[in-house]
Parts: sequence; structure tokens; C-alpha cells
Amino acid sequence: MSVLWYTEWLSSHEAHIHGILELIFDGRTKYQRVTIARTGSFGLALFLDGFIQSAEYDEFIYHESLVHPAMITYGNPRKVLIIGGGEGATLREVLKYESVERVVMVDIDEELVNLCKKYLPEWHEGAFDDPRAELVFADGRKFIEETEEKFDVIILDVTDPVKGTPGVLLYTKEFYEKVKERLNPGGVIVTQATSLRYYERVFAVIHNTVASVFPIARRYKVFVPSFYSDWGFVLGSLGRDPLEVPREEVESKLARLSLRFLDAEQFRFLFALPRFLAERLSKYKEISTLSNPVEI
Amino acid sequence: MSVLWYTEWLSSHEAHIHGILELIFDGRTKYQRVTIARTGSFGLALFLDGFIQSAEYDEFIYHESLVHPAMITYGNPRKVLIIGGGEGATLREVLKYESVERVVMVDIDEELVNLCKKYLPEWHEGAFDDPRAELVFADGRKFIEETEEKFDVIILDVTDPVKGTPGVLLYTKEFYEKVKERLNPGGVIVTQATSLRYYERVFAVIHNTVASVFPIARRYKVFVPSFYSDWGFVLGSLGRDPLEVPREEVESKLARLSLRFLDAEQFRFLFALPRFLAERLSKYKEISTLSNPVEI
Amino acid sequence: MSVLWYTEWLSSHEAHIHGILELIFDGRTKYQRVTIARTGSFGLALFLDGFIQSAEYDEFIYHESLVHPAMITYGNPRKVLIIGGGEGATLREVLKYESVERVVMVDIDEELVNLCKKYLPEWHEGAFDDPRAELVFADGRKFIEETEEKFDVIILDVTDPVKGTPGVLLYTKEFYEKVKERLNPGGVIVTQATSLRYYERVFAVIHNTVASVFPIARRYKVFVPSFYSDWGFVLGSLGRDPLEVPREEVESKLARLSLRFLDAEQFRFLFALPRFLAERLSKYKEISTLSNPVEI
Amino acid sequence: MSVLWYTEWLSSHEAHIHGILELIFDGRTKYQRVTIARTGSFGLALFLDGFIQSAEYDEFIYHESLVHPAMITYGNPRKVLIIGGGEGATLREVLKYESVERVVMVDIDEELVNLCKKYLPEWHEGAFDDPRAELVFADGRKFIEETEEKFDVIILDVTDPVKGTPGVLLYTKEFYEKVKERLNPGGVIVTQATSLRYYERVFAVIHNTVASVFPIARRYKVFVPSFYSDWGFVLGSLGRDPLEVPREEVESKLARLSLRFLDAEQFRFLFALPRFLAERLSKYKEISTLSNPVEI
Repeated sequence: MSVLWYTEWLSSHEAHIHGILELIFDGRTKYQRVTIARTGSFGLALFLDGFIQSAEYDEFIYHESLVHPAMITYGNPRKVLIIGGGEGATLREVLKYESVERVVMVDIDEELVNLCKKYLPEWHEGAFDDPRAELVFADGRKFIEETEEKFDVIILDVTDPVKGTPGVLLYTKEFYEKVKERLNPGGVIVTQATSLRYYERVFAVIHNTVASVFPIARRYKVFVPSFYSDWGFVLGSLGRDPLEVPREEVESKLARLSLRFLDAEQFRFLFALPRFLAERLSKYKEISTLSNPVEI
Repeated sequence: MSVLWYTEWLSSHEAHIHGILELIFDGRTKYQRVTIARTGSFGLALFLDGFIQSAEYDEFIYHESLVHPAMITYGNPRKVLIIGGGEGATLREVLKYESVERVVMVDIDEELVNLCKKYLPEWHEGAFDDPRAELVFADGRKFIEETEEKFDVIILDVTDPVKGTPGVLLYTKEFYEKVKERLNPGGVIVTQATSLRYYERVFAVIHNTVASVFPIARRYKVFVPSFYSDWGFVLGSLGRDPLEVPREEVESKLARLSLRFLDAEQFRFLFALPRFLAERLSKYKEISTLSNPVEI
Repeated sequence: MSVLWYTEWLSSHEAHIHGILELIFDGRTKYQRVTIARTGSFGLALFLDGFIQSAEYDEFIYHESLVHPAMITYGNPRKVLIIGGGEGATLREVLKYESVERVVMVDIDEELVNLCKKYLPEWHEGAFDDPRAELVFADGRKFIEETEEKFDVIILDVTDPVKGTPGVLLYTKEFYEKVKERLNPGGVIVTQATSLRYYERVFAVIHNTVASVFPIARRYKVFVPSFYSDWGFVLGSLGRDPLEVPREEVESKLARLSLRFLDAEQFRFLFALPRFLAERLSKYKEISTLSNPVEI
Repeated sequence: MSVLWYTEWLSSHEAHIHGILELIFDGRTKYQRVTIARTGSFGLALFLDGFIQSAEYDEFIYHESLVHPAMITYGNPRKVLIIGGGEGATLREVLKYESVERVVMVDIDEELVNLCKKYLPEWHEGAFDDPRAELVFADGRKFIEETEEKFDVIILDVTDPVKGTPGVLLYTKEFYEKVKERLNPGGVIVTQATSLRYYERVFAVIHNTVASVFPIARRYKVFVPSFYSDWGFVLGSLGRDPLEVPREEVESKLARLSLRFLDAEQFRFLFALPRFLAERLSKYKEISTLSNPVEI
């Protein structure tokens, strides 16, 4: 029986507990408490402020599901922006596209990125050294406001909108409007959108908010075992609708990427919400704004 | 913070903990420890010997996924046999078909069934009182061996093959051969087949075993939040292949049943295993036999 | 490994967890959540609102230490009042004295007392049926204010002064003044005074408060294994000082009571606080009053 | 609510859980898993193989109770041997005596001692640098067998006799006979003797075993909050009986040491076991031998 346990408190009535075989790093950066540990449940894992961020066992399910729907919907992206994504696995997935010429990854927490570089090589697989990648340590919101560059795809791989943290602002209408301005014609954005079980309302509101800014908005989800829940994403597009990308195109594009999770069939099922969930989500009509942001 | 917790120990390194708002029943029947409690996580729930069996929040996902693929694959079943299924929810789903004339439900644990009748009315919804239903308290294996009746669909809703319990025998080639003898032409069976994450090998072996007895065998899975994992099922058919039932037929049949989870799209999704999982499962070649049974 | 656990949260960083072999009762009375369970750690146990109250393994340590110092300090008490003490074990200890002619036990929670009568016979050992005992279901504070009877010894076996509960008032100067009025000349009171480790300040303040009302006030403590801590008591006397009762008298009195824990040597050591603890406690100078009560 | 927890499993039904505010070190030496952490419950703490060894909050209770009864019983010890005691706090207490000219401390685990030197300065307080102290990294049993030196006091501060570990041998009659040979006339030994609650039988058997080798053997105990239990010790003497050291001598000796826990009254209290415990212990008649060692 393990003696050291990482406990994720989902509520005052529910927790997941992970036995720690070896604690590799535990400390605070300027922004968060970082714990890197070898778990008995999911292998090597990164925890931030009480919650698992990604685990060796299945990080590819999350990262493939985050990155590829947006990339394929756009078509042949050349310039990509990632906000967040400290582990480097989002960057790794983006760099799999031959069409990609330049990726800017903006993360606020330099210490975290350095810890990931050192302790999580299976995540980034050397992506940080790719000459197409530029790493910027800055506040994502400020970067979006100040840069004059435009991108084909923008990926928001940021922490949940936890009350009292600056992450809250990255899920507002005002922020998405700034993001939209940084897109090339036909551009696509995608954001992680929290857990469908624990933060159902947050997921619904993020979808509503993206839909209030982009002509096309699609919510989708995937089951990530180490999150013990379906995980949500929202995609916004100025061009194509991901549901209308021909299956053959999805198939041929994915075939070139050597993925572990996503294939054309799973791609389609990402977007299929079961009835009871669609009904539950339809209750939430509000959007997130600076003056009334959605929060966890 | 909850003070009373039900802990599901998945391994010596992993557990789910459920805060108990109200403990409604805790005791031992002749066969098992039964705990019925109002949880903060998933509402009213039934636990047997350390593991959640079903919860108010999502029992319909499990029960719809267990029952309907087999029923629809058969076509218009008239006679159905359920082994296990103490809560009465499997029975409830079967009775939704107008074609059904007779259902026999065989459960070994009369005390458990009585507890479910009393405390879990949302599960059975009165199914036990339907004149088409016959309830038999007996050992499922013995019943199968001794009955001379034949059925269109047989549903095995029994506990996992935990080492040292009689449930182990209900997943062997020898048992499936007896079951096959009790099917009408074109008959279909389905068995629950444990967790894809915690008992990956068990799931694979059950599939192999069913495939060694039935001309058509299909494994499938669904994410059940309160199981914190994808849950496995295996269907064996003497007639149609579930993958070849026309989508229109699936749609029109499901439309008549007023379900909460399953629709034609999810029906198809059940059978689509992601690549990494298919690869992991393909490693297991063995089948379960009386002399060498698969066990948890 | 137990599956059902009772968790005592001492703080957000510390808990004791008790595996439940059998949950005997869990429910709410008008006043509190009552859980009676067979634990693997301490046998049968009573828990109220998140904390163990007493356990089969060692309830006698608590109850002997609560009752006998006050009784022996008084001498030969004839009339005794108990406020609280729902389990009946305090009553049991009081009734061991041949000198006792009448005991009034006042508990606010009739449902709790009935549960204890039914499920915890090892605690009360029939004490409720003793003709010398009168059981009153009433608010202890009100009873003290309204009764005109006087007593030789008054025992306050009430729940901790948890913020927001009426128990807070039973540890104030104003209350102790009322209690004092109900004592015969030379009368003695004793109150349980919380955990020395978890509520060091509360213990010190209760002592200060009793000392502000009674000419003699003595704090003492005993280690109770199922409380995982030294437990505190405060005795107030209008007559003798417990430290000046001759050892021979203590010995001869205790000898007649057939106790399991207390003897003349332990009696004396109850009052001996180690240096570091005395120093820590000496920091607290305040007393508890209605307008500024001490609280947990 | 803490997210990282150290869990001490006392049995399959009981555990103490310590929230970790900061994990300072977690790793394996050649001999054991060492975890050093800042806990919310007891401050900085050292854990070995699943159990707390000592904590900032109260290590002095354990170390003062281990060292001083033996030292004072001897009188004015000049030469002292410590087996174990990796943290350096036992050494620290021994060095408080002006009479002490030489202390040899023998610990098997050099890596552990170096971790303690680095991370637990509050424990050793520089004791390792005292010119009277010699530190030897060796197996304690071998050292005892091979050294030709004799000592006035020998202190056995070693890990519990956990089944399958070499520690088991350090609690046997054969070992105590070797130890006795290394004592000067009137010499005294003391050993830690596990938890009175969790390992009652082990404590009793250690006492029996020491009593089978030494003319005088005394068991004693002290409550250590971070052990959540009374902790046991056994003292063996070739000369004086600790119960017969005059109180004035105890007082004047302790007065010179500037202790935090032990005074003359607590010194006497150490040896006073309450009745129910004495009765429980009296059931165990056996001694520990190489061929039939006592084990946890």
C-alpha cells in the first residue's frame, strides 16, 4: 500500500488518490505549486496546484485531441500560436505538420517550463529545440494584445479559470475578440474547456462565449483516463466547420502524423455528445465577460 | 468535508473516494457485503464488496449500453434471460421492447434483490411487478445447465470474475457453450466485461473466449463516470453482426425506447476502440477455461 | 484493506481514519449526525458530527478520569448532576459510589440517548435503570437556570465549544457562575476541556474561566488512545483541593470502585503537566464570556 | 485542504494521514525509503519506510525519555555507545552531560545520516561536530560483536523489529548478552521498544527478554503526540534500579540539562503503567531469541 499520496479534491465529497512511488520534484514557482512524481496509477505525472495536468499513460489523448481538430480544420497551417502548454507536448503535436513554418509558444511560467524540459522529456521529445519553434516567457493575454503577428491557428492550452487566478480572463468574450484579431483569414482557435463532469457549466459557458465571437463554434470532448472524466474543448473558426471537413481529408491528414489515439472515426466521435449531456448543457445560456466571468 | 467515505481500492496505488452524505444500509447478505448510500459525487449508489455497482447519476449509461446492442442485433426478441442484474435496471430496459413476451431474471442473492426493491426504486421502476417478468433466485450457472427453455437474447449482468468467487466460472468457454445451447436460432448474448483500464487483460480474454464459441463476437465499451473508466462488454451472436445492423433500423428501434444515453451515433461509437487500446488488447491471445480461468 | 472509513479531520493537514467493519447506525437526530460503527481500530464506537466520542477500547479511561477526581475531592457525594453524557457511561461511574443517593442526568438529545441505550449497552451497563438515576431531556443551560435543587458534584460532559453551536455557552464565566449557585457547600464541578494538542488554547481558556469563578481550579489531562491525544479536564472546587486529598484516602476510595484505569498513582499524574506544555499554556491569559466566548 | 499526504498504515483498518506542506526529500538509501517533509501537523518530520521517526514538534519528548533514565540511573557516565540514532538527537542529549568524555554512535546508513545532517539541523544541533563524539558507519550488531571497548551506558535507538529486516536481531536474548559484555560494572542499557498500542505484544516480549539477561529490567512509556500512541522503552541495569534513584538526585541532575519535557515528576510517571495495560501485558510470557524472534 502506498504511503505517499497525491489527492485531487474534486469537491468536499469526492477525490482521486494517486499513490506516489517516487516524488521527483515538489516546490513552488512564482506562479504555482509544481509536483512531479512517478505514480502507481498513470506513470510519470505533472501536478499543478492540486490537479493532475498530464500523465505518461495518456497525455497523448489530451494533446492529440486538443491540437489536431483545429489544425485539420484549417487545412495546411503555416503559422501557429500556443498560449500555455508548458510541458511542450502541444508544441510537439503542432510540429508534426510539414506545412508548419513557425510556432510561437507563450508561457508565463519559465520555471515550470524548465522543470518540464528537465523531468518530462517524454512529453516534449525535443520539441523546444526545433528551429521552427520560438519560446516566449510572457503573460499570454498581454502577448495577444501587443503582438502584431497573425496566425493560422491559435491554441489555448491554459489552466482552468479558477476563481482569483489570472486564468479567468483567458475565457472571456473580450479575450476571444483579441484572439480573433490575431487570426489570418479562415483561422481557427481551440481552447481546452475543463471537465464535463466537474465543471459542466463552465464548459457550456465557454462554448457559448466562443460562439458569440466566431461564426463557427464547436464543442467537443474526449475521455482521458487520468482525468477520470470526459474532458472538454471548444473550437472557433473563421473558415471551415470541423464537421464538414471530408472524411477522406481527415483520414489522409491524420495518417501522416503517426498518432496513438486519434483516427478519422475518433475524430468524428469527439463531436458527438450523448443526449443526456446535450440536454444538461443546453440549460446554460450565459457567456463569460470581463465584468461577469465564468469561474471554477 | 465529508467524514464518512467509501473507498474503492483499484490497486495499492490508486483509489477513488466517495463522501457519504447518508449511509442507508450496510450489511452482509449470504453472498456479499452490501452498502447503499447517498454519495456526494453520484447520488444514491449501490456498492458490493468494495466497488460501486451503479449510481443514480449514470446507471442508465451502463444499463442502456448493456441491453440494447444485443436486443437490437437480434431484431424483435420475444424471450429474454437475464443472469444477475439484482438492481432490476437491466430488467427495466428489456421490458421497454413491445416484442418481449417473457423475461426470466435469475439472481443468486435474494436478500440483495429485496434491498434493491426497497431502497433503489429509481432503478427498477416497478419492473419486478411486470407480468412478463419472472424472478428466480438461483445460481445462474446451475439454472443455465438445468433449464430446458430457450431464449432469443441472454444477458449476463454478473459480478466481475474476482479470484476465489463463483463468478469466475461465468466467464469461461465451458459456460459460454452451455449458454449457447439455450439460444434460439439467431440468438444473441452479451456479458459485462469489466473495466478497460483496470482489467485490460480480463476484458481482452473475455472477448477471446466469446469469440471461441460464437461465430460473431464484438467487444465494445462506454465511459461510465461513476466507474471512472471505460467499461467493457462483449456480444456474441449466432445471427446478425451488430456492426451490420442498418443505421436506419438502429435509429427507428432506439427512437421507440425513450433512452437517456444511447442514440444511433453513440451506438456506433460503442464499437470504435481507439488505436492505442486496440494495440494493447491485441497482446492477449489466451481464452478463459475451467482449468485456466481469467481472474481479477 | 477497509472500504468504508470514518475520517476525523483535525485540520486541513491532519486526519485520523478509522476503517469501518460494520456500520450499525448513521443518521441525524434533531441536534447532530450520529454514527455508530464497529471500527477495526477501537471496536464499537460512537461518532458525533465528525468526531469520535467514545470507543469500546478505552471509553473507561475518559469516563473514569472525568468522574472520579471530582467525586473523591468532594468526599462522599450524595447528590450529583450530570449535564450531557448521552452514552450513560458517566452515569455508570457516578453510580459506583455507595454514598450517592440521587443522580440527575440532563441531556438535550433524546434520540441520541435512545440510540446509546439500544446499541451501546457496554457503556451504560444498565445505569439508566438504576432507581437513583433520573433522566431529563432538556437544554442543560436552561435546566441549570431553572432548577432549585442543589448538588454536591456537577459533571459537565458536553460537546466541545464548536463555533455556532449552543455548546459554546457551556464554557463561559456566566454559565459557571450559574453552576456554582447550584452547588452545596464544598461542592465540586468538573468539565471536559477538549484536546490538549488540537485545541491547546481552548483548554487553557476553560481553565482560566473556571479559575475566575471558583476559589480552587485545577486543570488535568489523560492520554486517551482513541482520541490520539491527551485530553483535558478542568475541576473547580468550593471546598477541598484535589491535590491535597491524602493519598491514602484516594487509594481507599478508588479501591472500592473496581476501575480499569485509575489508581492512586495515575490520579496524581493526571495533574502533572510536562514543562513544555505548561509553558505553552501559560501564554493564554483570557477567559471565556458570553460576549467573547472561546470557540473551536 | 492538503493535496500531498503521507499515510501511516497502522493496520488495514487504521491510518494517520499527514498533509505535506513541502516535500523536501524523497528517495531510497541503500537501506530504506527516506522522506523528509514539512507537515502541517507536526512541522518538519522524518519518515522511514512508511512511518514517522521524529518530528520537530515533539522529538524532544522521545529523545529525552530514551536517553535520560539510563544516564541518570548509571550516575555519572563517562563513556556511552549509541546504536542507531541517525538524526543525531540522541547524541545531542547524551552530550549534555558534563561527565561524558566519549560517545560512539554507530549507524548503518551513512546516506541517511548525511540527509539528517543537511536537512534536520534542529535535531542534531551540531552534535556531530562535538570532539567527544565519534561517528561509525557500520552494522550495529557486528560492531557490538567486534569492539573490545566497554561503555557505561549503551543506547539502542534502532528501527522496530519488522519481519524480514535485520532489525529483528537487535531485540533478541543473544544480542542483549553481547551488549551486556560491552558494559562496565554497574552499566545500563536502554532500548526503544515500539508502540504500546499497536505492538503491545512486542513491547511485552522485549521487556521479558531484557529481564532474562539483566538483573534489573524496567519497562516504561511516554505519550509522543506525533506517534499518536504511548511509546515503549525497556531499561536493563547491572547496577542501580531507576525506581530507586533518589528523587533529589533525579531533580538535581535533570536541572542541569535544560530539558523541555522531562522533570522529576514525569521521570517517575514514565514507569507507572495503568492497571488495564499492566494486565494486558502480563499475558505475554515469551522471550525473543534468534531461533524465535519477536517481530512486527
